[in-house]
Amino acid sequence: MTTILHLDASPRTDRSISRRLSRRFVDEWRTHRSTDRIIHRDLAIDPPPHVTQAWIAACFTPNEKRDAAMRRDLSWSDAAISELEAADLIVLGTPMYNYGMPSALKAWFDQVIRVGRTFSFDLARGDWPLEPMMSGKRLVVLSSRGEFGFEPGGPRARFNQLDPHIATCGRYLGVAPNAIHTIAVEYQEFGDDRHARSVERAESEAVRMAGVLVAEAAPYAVAGRASA
Amino acid sequence: MTTILHLDASPRTDRSISRRLSRRFVDEWRTHRSTDRIIHRDLAIDPPPHVTQAWIAACFTPNEKRDAAMRRDLSWSDAAISELEAADLIVLGTPMYNYGMPSALKAWFDQVIRVGRTFSFDLARGDWPLEPMMSGKRLVVLSSRGEFGFEPGGPRARFNQLDPHIATCGRYLGVAPNAIHTIAVEYQEFGDDRHARSVERAESEAVRMAGVLVAEAAPYAVAGRASA
Repeated sequence: MTTILHLDASPRTDRSISRRLSRRFVDEWRTHRSTDRIIHRDLAIDPPPHVTQAWIAACFTPNEKRDAAMRRDLSWSDAAISELEAADLIVLGTPMYNYGMPSALKAWFDQVIRVGRTFSFDLARGDWPLEPMMSGKRLVVLSSRGEFGFEPGGPRARFNQLDPHIATCGRYLGVAPNAIHTIAVEYQEFGDDRHARSVERAESEAVRMAGVLVAEAAPYAVAGRASA
Repeated sequence: MTTILHLDASPRTDRSISRRLSRRFVDEWRTHRSTDRIIHRDLAIDPPPHVTQAWIAACFTPNEKRDAAMRRDLSWSDAAISELEAADLIVLGTPMYNYGMPSALKAWFDQVIRVGRTFSFDLARGDWPLEPMMSGKRLVVLSSRGEFGFEPGGPRARFNQLDPHIATCGRYLGVAPNAIHTIAVEYQEFGDDRHARSVERAESEAVRMAGVLVAEAAPYAVAGRASA
């Protein structure tokens, strides 16, 4: 079985392009693998708390010494990390806001990247003391941008603070840089033919990418099949 | 008179390095120019709301057509933009979290960068339809990083999603790229001599930078002086 963590970060519900794309991907996945587990976490409807001083203190307190308040402070993070640990594939639908992540998505990363849970810290490693504790996950980013040309070499590449940031943080989710697949709708603010073509391309690319990753996924166990 | 908008984004209160640095800068400024207006906005204690679907709809509704609920949805943004409009100089104390802005700081940018208020949008401009509506502000960034080497050419330069993102968004605050001065404490996670030296350097640099900008600031009006 493959477990998918499906995240949506767009504050728009009905009119969101990134939500439609992430749903398209997941729906396509389901047509091939109907019994896989899909965990959906809506970061806009139910936004992660910002990191607080108490949260930081709780993180740096050994688990057995945490009191009830500390456990409460970490409960959102604990639940989100459990979902992440279970996931083989993360499907992230997000708009680009002010050239980067919407604040609710950044809050999710700040809640799940946690010492002793998603990365270890050891000064014996010298100048590179952080190591991720998970590995082997894949990440599909389905995003929407108002402008265009954010790809490497594009006219707005240097303003793209979304994709490089996701890649930088992805390491601590157990996602290697070459395990990230990004599909983006562009030109949303222009509302012209270029936008229409971009939507069309991204939708068929989302379906194609689902097929590629389905083909790579572990086959159903025979027992699992028989019981389905 | 110069108006300073002093922002703090660190969730830590007493132990925050970036808060100490931003306070150091502002205190030094005050010793030279005691009657300047300083607006302090604490983004950690009183975090900006995340952008919502209703917020977006209210932004795109002409002011005279907004109902009471829409005005309420925009009230945080309105207040924050008024502070920004008043400011000649923005002093931003912030840690680097997961290589970028803390989520509360991103929420501030998402609240203040707003069509018709901080930027105009016109398709007659072709492929670059956005233009900032303000200009001539300066920004001093006082930040703290757990690791080191995030400067251009440094070993972690490619992971730095904080400074380039602030520069990209700064344009829409009326801050040109060459009007940003960044002072950073590094090595916090190492807690060694390099960290101690970095703190010392950053503190004296904050004081020096305050002096440089004081020297550039508009002199007190004679009338203002007489009445002080």
